Amino acid sequence: MTSISRLLQPRSVAVIGASADAGKTAGRPVAYLRKHGFTGDIYPVNPRTDHIDGLRCYPDVASLPTVPDVGIVLLGAERAHRAVQDLSARGTAAAIVLASGYTETGEEGARRQAQLMEAAGAMRILGPNTIGLVNLTDHIVLSASGALEMDHFPVGSVGVVSQSGGILGALLSRAAARGIGLSKLISTSNEVDLDLADFIDHLADDEATRVIALYVESVRHPERFRQAALKAARAGKPVVAFKIGRSEAGAQAAVSHTGALAGADRMYDALFKEVGVIRAQTFGDLLDIPAALSTGRVLRGNRVAILTSTGGAGTLVSDSYGVSGFETPPPDEATAARLRALQTGDQAALDRNPIDVTLAGLQPDLLRGAIRALLESPSYDALTIIVGSSSLAMPELMAGAIQDCLPLSDKPVIAYVSPHAPQVTALLTQRGVPAFVDAESCTAALAGMLQARRWTEPTATPPVAPAALNGIGKGSLNEAECKQLFARFGIPCTAETVVATPAEAEQAAHHLGERVVLKILTGEITHKSDVGGVAVNLPPEQIGERLRQMADDVQAKAGTRPSRFLVQEMVSGGTELILGMHRDALGTAILLGMGGVTAELFKDTTLRMLPTSGGLSREVAAAMVRELKTWPLLDGYRGRPPADVDALVSAIVAFSQMTAQLGDRLVEAEINPVFVLARGQGVKAADGVVVLADAG
Amino acid sequence: MTSISRLLQPRSVAVIGASADAGKTAGRPVAYLRKHGFTGDIYPVNPRTDHIDGLRCYPDVASLPTVPDVGIVLLGAERAHRAVQDLSARGTAAAIVLASGYTETGEEGARRQAQLMEAAGAMRILGPNTIGLVNLTDHIVLSASGALEMDHFPVGSVGVVSQSGGILGALLSRAAARGIGLSKLISTSNEVDLDLADFIDHLADDEATRVIALYVESVRHPERFRQAALKAARAGKPVVAFKIGRSEAGAQAAVSHTGALAGADRMYDALFKEVGVIRAQTFGDLLDIPAALSTGRVLRGNRVAILTSTGGAGTLVSDSYGVSGFETPPPDEATAARLRALQTGDQAALDRNPIDVTLAGLQPDLLRGAIRALLESPSYDALTIIVGSSSLAMPELMAGAIQDCLPLSDKPVIAYVSPHAPQVTALLTQRGVPAFVDAESCTAALAGMLQARRWTEPTATPPVAPAALNGIGKGSLNEAECKQLFARFGIPCTAETVVATPAEAEQAAHHLGERVVLKILTGEITHKSDVGGVAVNLPPEQIGERLRQMADDVQAKAGTRPSRFLVQEMVSGGTELILGMHRDALGTAILLGMGGVTAELFKDTTLRMLPTSGGLSREVAAAMVRELKTWPLLDGYRGRPPADVDALVSAIVAFSQMTAQLGDRLVEAEINPVFVLARGQGVKAADGVVVLADAG
Repeated sequence: MTSISRLLQPRSVAVIGASADAGKTAGRPVAYLRKHGFTGDIYPVNPRTDHIDGLRCYPDVASLPTVPDVGIVLLGAERAHRAVQDLSARGTAAAIVLASGYTETGEEGARRQAQLMEAAGAMRILGPNTIGLVNLTDHIVLSASGALEMDHFPVGSVGVVSQSGGILGALLSRAAARGIGLSKLISTSNEVDLDLADFIDHLADDEATRVIALYVESVRHPERFRQAALKAARAGKPVVAFKIGRSEAGAQAAVSHTGALAGADRMYDALFKEVGVIRAQTFGDLLDIPAALSTGRVLRGNRVAILTSTGGAGTLVSDSYGVSGFETPPPDEATAARLRALQTGDQAALDRNPIDVTLAGLQPDLLRGAIRALLESPSYDALTIIVGSSSLAMPELMAGAIQDCLPLSDKPVIAYVSPHAPQVTALLTQRGVPAFVDAESCTAALAGMLQARRWTEPTATPPVAPAALNGIGKGSLNEAECKQLFARFGIPCTAETVVATPAEAEQAAHHLGERVVLKILTGEITHKSDVGGVAVNLPPEQIGERLRQMADDVQAKAGTRPSRFLVQEMVSGGTELILGMHRDALGTAILLGMGGVTAELFKDTTLRMLPTSGGLSREVAAAMVRELKTWPLLDGYRGRPPADVDALVSAIVAFSQMTAQLGDRLVEAEINPVFVLARGQGVKAADGVVVLADAG
Repeated sequence: MTSISRLLQPRSVAVIGASADAGKTAGRPVAYLRKHGFTGDIYPVNPRTDHIDGLRCYPDVASLPTVPDVGIVLLGAERAHRAVQDLSARGTAAAIVLASGYTETGEEGARRQAQLMEAAGAMRILGPNTIGLVNLTDHIVLSASGALEMDHFPVGSVGVVSQSGGILGALLSRAAARGIGLSKLISTSNEVDLDLADFIDHLADDEATRVIALYVESVRHPERFRQAALKAARAGKPVVAFKIGRSEAGAQAAVSHTGALAGADRMYDALFKEVGVIRAQTFGDLLDIPAALSTGRVLRGNRVAILTSTGGAGTLVSDSYGVSGFETPPPDEATAARLRALQTGDQAALDRNPIDVTLAGLQPDLLRGAIRALLESPSYDALTIIVGSSSLAMPELMAGAIQDCLPLSDKPVIAYVSPHAPQVTALLTQRGVPAFVDAESCTAALAGMLQARRWTEPTATPPVAPAALNGIGKGSLNEAECKQLFARFGIPCTAETVVATPAEAEQAAHHLGERVVLKILTGEITHKSDVGGVAVNLPPEQIGERLRQMADDVQAKAGTRPSRFLVQEMVSGGTELILGMHRDALGTAILLGMGGVTAELFKDTTLRMLPTSGGLSREVAAAMVRELKTWPLLDGYRGRPPADVDALVSAIVAFSQMTAQLGDRLVEAEINPVFVLARGQGVKAADGVVVLADAG
C-alpha cells in the first residue's frame, strides 16, 4: 500500500492533541471518526487525560501500542512539528496537520513550514492549515469540519480535492443536501507535501471514483498536475475544476503584447484545455457538472427533449438551452406519432417540445411511454424532465417511472425541479437522475458532458533539428534578425533589405515592387512608429529623400540618429493577425489573435499550451484559428476572398516548434502583424519581437 | 374601491365548481382560503352537494346570499363563460378563470376567449388559464397552486406578477424557503382583461409593496406597461423583470441592417432601460435582486467590504465581485486601526479585505465592532458577511449581532451562506439581511441595487416643426433623396451631385476634391456594391470613363442599365458608424452601432426607445455613444485624434427627431455609414436607406 492509500484507508489513527470536549475543534476528530463508523483503532494522544469518550488516551506518540497509519495533529503551529517528528520516527505513513500560521501568514510562518517539512522526514504530510479529509466510500472521517455534524451523507462516485479547508465543508454539506454522492473529499490547503496532483493521481486509480472535482486556488506544480490530469483523462474519469482568482490583472510582459493579452487566468484556461479539465464557471457548477458526469451517461450532441408536468418551467429551461447553443427541436414524425398515441383523453398536444403532460396529470404509464419514446428518438441526444408541484405529493411515482426507463438508453437524463422541493431533488439525484433547481445548472451540466465527450489528447509535432540554431544572437533582436529567426523555422516573412544610405535604399526598393515600406532598424526602440520610424506605401523613387527625413525625425524624437534602415515589400489586402508566445509558472502558451485596432479592443485571442514534447499539432493550430470570433473574416465573410488558412496553420505550427526548440532561451517572441493573404498566396510575417536569453 | 382592490381584498368570495375533495384541484381554493386564514365569506357553488367542509354550498350564482366581490371559476372552458356571465349579472367585481383551452390552444380557443370577454361585461377578468392570486399581506389566498399546501410563508414587501401560472407556485415556494417576504402574488396568464400593467399600477400604490418582481413572457400592451412602470419608478418602487424568449431569432427587416441588429429581445432591453425596469438575467435573480431591494437600503457605489468567519468563501465571493466590476479594496487607515483595536488575542490580522475573524471564533462583541467599523468606513458602500459552519450552531448570535448594527447606516448589508444551511439563510433574510447561497447572487443583488439607484427618467427633445416635411416622397428613397431628408433634419451629409452623363460627372467631380466617389443612383438596388455600382478614390479626370464602365458592369450584373449616378466627395480618416431606427410591437428604437466589418462581427450596437413625446435627449444620445465597446476608437485610443463626439450626439438627436416627426410614415431608416471625423470637423452621412409609407 502506498502512503496515500494508507492515508485514505488507515487501519489505525492517532489524534495528537485530542480534546475530551467534542464541542471544541480538537474534540471533533475522535468524535467524528466514531460517529461516522470508523472500524479501526483510534489512539487519542493527550498527556493531560486518561480517557476520551471511553477510549484510552496516550501521553505521547512514543507510547502508542502500534504504529498508526495516520496521525491527525491538532497542536498549534509552534508545537505541531514535534508531533510530526515523533510520528515519523514511529513509521506513520502520513500526518494531517490542521494548524494555521504557516506560509499563509508571512516569513515566520514560512520558516515554521520548512521546519515542519524537515520534521516529517519520509512521512507524507497533508496540510498544514487543512481541515483534513473524508473517505466516504469507507466511512473514514479524518477531519474537524463542522459539516460532519451531519448524521448521513450520500456515498457516490465524485471525488473532491479542495485547496481551501472551509470550502470542503461547504461542498460536503451542499452535496449531501442535493443527494450527490461523493467518494473522497480532501483538503490540501498549504500543500507543504501532498498536493492536488497527488490526489488526482490517486483518484484516477480509485475504483469508487468516477469523476474528480477540484477547487483550485493555485496550481503549484503544473507539470505534476498535467500528468495527473492526463492520467485521469486516459482512465475515462473527467476532471472538473473551479478556479478562483479570475479577476486578477493580466500578466505584464516587457516588450510584446502577448503577455498582456494572455493573462494569468487565461493561462489556466489553456492548461485545463490541454489536459481535458472541464472548467466550472461558477462554484455551483463544481457540483452540478460532476453530478451529471457521475451517471456515466454519454452526451453525443446538443439536441435536448424537454418533458414537463408544469407550465412555464419547461419554457424557462428551453430558453436557457437556447441561449447557450443547445437545440430543443420538435420531435421527428415517428416520435411525434408515438407521443400522440399516448393520449388518454382530452389532453394538450404531446407532439411538440417541451412535451407537456401537465393536463394528463401524473400517470406513470404515460410518463414511462413518453420517456421511452424520447430516449429512443433519433431526434434527441438528451432528455430533461421538468418536475412541478404535482410531483411533490408523489415523488416516488415520478422518480420510479424515470428510473424504470434509464436502462433503455445511455443518453443523459436530468431533471429540473421547479418548486422548492429539496427532498424530491435529492431523491431524483440519488436514483441516477441528476436534478437541478436552476435552468443555468441544467445547461452547465450538459455543456460539461459535451466537453468531456469531445476532448481528445493533443499530440505534439517534434521540434525541428537543433542544427538550425547557430548564431541567432541574444538579447532583444532587431526586426531583420527576428525575421531571419522566423524564416529558419519556415515562417514566410516579407522580402526586405537592410540599408544605411539613401542610395542603398533606392537600389533595394526597385527590387521590392511598386510600393515599399521604410523602417528604422533597431533592437532598442520597440514602438518604431511612435518616433516617426515607419513610412508605408512609398514609391521607390521617393525613398531616398524619405530616409533622410526619417533620420531627422527619429533623431528629434528619440535623441539618437538611426544608422540602419529596412526597405521592405508592401503587403496589402491580407488580414492582420498576431502570433506570440507567453510563459508563466504554468507553462508556455502560444497565442493567436486578430490584429487591427478594433479586434484589439475586443481582445479576440485564443491560447494553447505548448506540449512538453514539441510544437502544436496542425489539428490544434486549426482549432485555434476557428475559435477566433473574427474567424469569418478568414473564411470568405461578405464576399471577401477566403484566406490561406492552411498557410496560417503551418505558420502557427512552425512558430510553436521554434518556441519548443528554443525553450527557456526564448524569453519573448511575437509576430505582429502576420498577414494572411488570399488562399494560395500564403502568409507573411511583417514585423516581430524576439528577446533571447544568453545561450549560457 | 376599484375592481382591482376588491379583487385583491375581497370581503366575500364565490367558488364556482368547488369540489368537496380537497385533493382535487377544484377542492383546493376553498381549502386554501380557510387554511390560510381568510376572514370573509366563502360561498362554494356546486349544484351536486349541500355542504363543503362545513360551509353551505349553493346550487348557482343567482342563489348566493350577497354579491361576492370575487368569483373563482373552476369550470372547464366550455362552461366557464356562463358562470362569468352570472357573476357579472350579480355585480361581482372580478372573476378569476382557471380553465385552459383558450388562445393558447389555437383558433377554437380564441373564439372561446372572445366569448368569455363578452360574458364578463363590466366585470374584470383575471386569466383565463391562471392559477389565481395570493394576497399575503391580508392572508387572502385565491389560488389553486399546489404550493399553497405549505402552512406558512413569510409576509413582506415584494409584489410579484407572473404571466405563467406554474411559475407562481415556484416563486412562492422558493421565496418562502429563502425567508423572502412577499406582499402580493398574481398570475395573469392569458390576460384577456387584467394584465401586467394593471397590477404594476396597483402595486405602485400598494403600501405593503416596496419592490415589484415580474415574470414576463410577452408585454402585450407596451404603452400601458410603460406608464405603469414609470408610475412605480416615480413612487420609488423598483421593478425587476425576468423575461423569457431570450433565444428568439432577431427580427427580420426588409432593407436595412438595423432590424437584424436590434432583435426582439434587445427591444425588451431598450424598453426596460427606458422605464427603469431592472432586468434579471436569470430566474434566480428574480428573487435575489428584489430580496436586496426590499430592505430599502441604498447602494451609492461599487466598493464592498467582506467580513468572513470562514476561510475560502470570502475569497470566492470577492472573486465574483471582481469579475463583475465591483471593488473590494483594503480598509482605509482609520478603519484599519479600528479593526486592529478589536483584536482580543492571537488572531489573524483584521485590517485587510476580506476581514477574516475565523480564528477569533464567533464573539458577538468582535462581530459588532467589525460590522460597525465597516458600515461607518468611508471606504465602503456595502458590506457582505460570509457565514461559515461555525455559525450553524448559533445562528441567533450571528443574526443578532448583525441586526444590532443595521440602524447605524443605510448601506446595504447582505450575507453569503457557505455551507448548506437553509434555516440560517432564511433567518438572516427575515432579519433584514438578504442571504444568498451563490456568489453570483450577491453580485447580481448589488448590481441591481446600483442600477435602481442610477436610473433617471429620460427626457425627450421636441420633434421639429412639421413644415419641413413637404415633398419628401414615398416608398424606397434613392440615396440622394435619403440625404436630402436627413439634411432637412440637420444631419450633415456628403457633398454630392446627381449626374447622367460622363461630361456631367467630370464637371461635378472637379468641385468635389482631389478624389471622389461614383455610385449608381437608384431606390431599387439596395446593395449597390454587389452589382459593381460603387467606385471610390477616383481622380476627377478618370470619372467619365469609370461611369461608362460602371453602367456596363451594372447592366451585366443587374440586368438594367443605370441612367443616373451620384458623384460624391470622398470622406477619409473618420470612424464609420451605423445609425438607424427599428420598430416592433414594443415601440420604436434608435440604434447606434460601430461600422466596419470587424465591429459587425462583434455586433457592437446599443438601442434606446424613442420617447413617446419626441426625440432622444442629448444625455441619452451621449450615453449611447459611450456604451459602445469600441467607444475608445472615438476617444483618442492609441494616438488617434479624438472624434467629434458632440457632432455625433447632435446627429443622433436629429435622427431621432426625424423618426419622431415622421412617426408611422417612416417604415425604415438608416444612415450607413455615418463618418465621425476628428473633433471640430463634424460628422457626414455617406449613405442611407429610407422607406416611407404613403402619406395617406
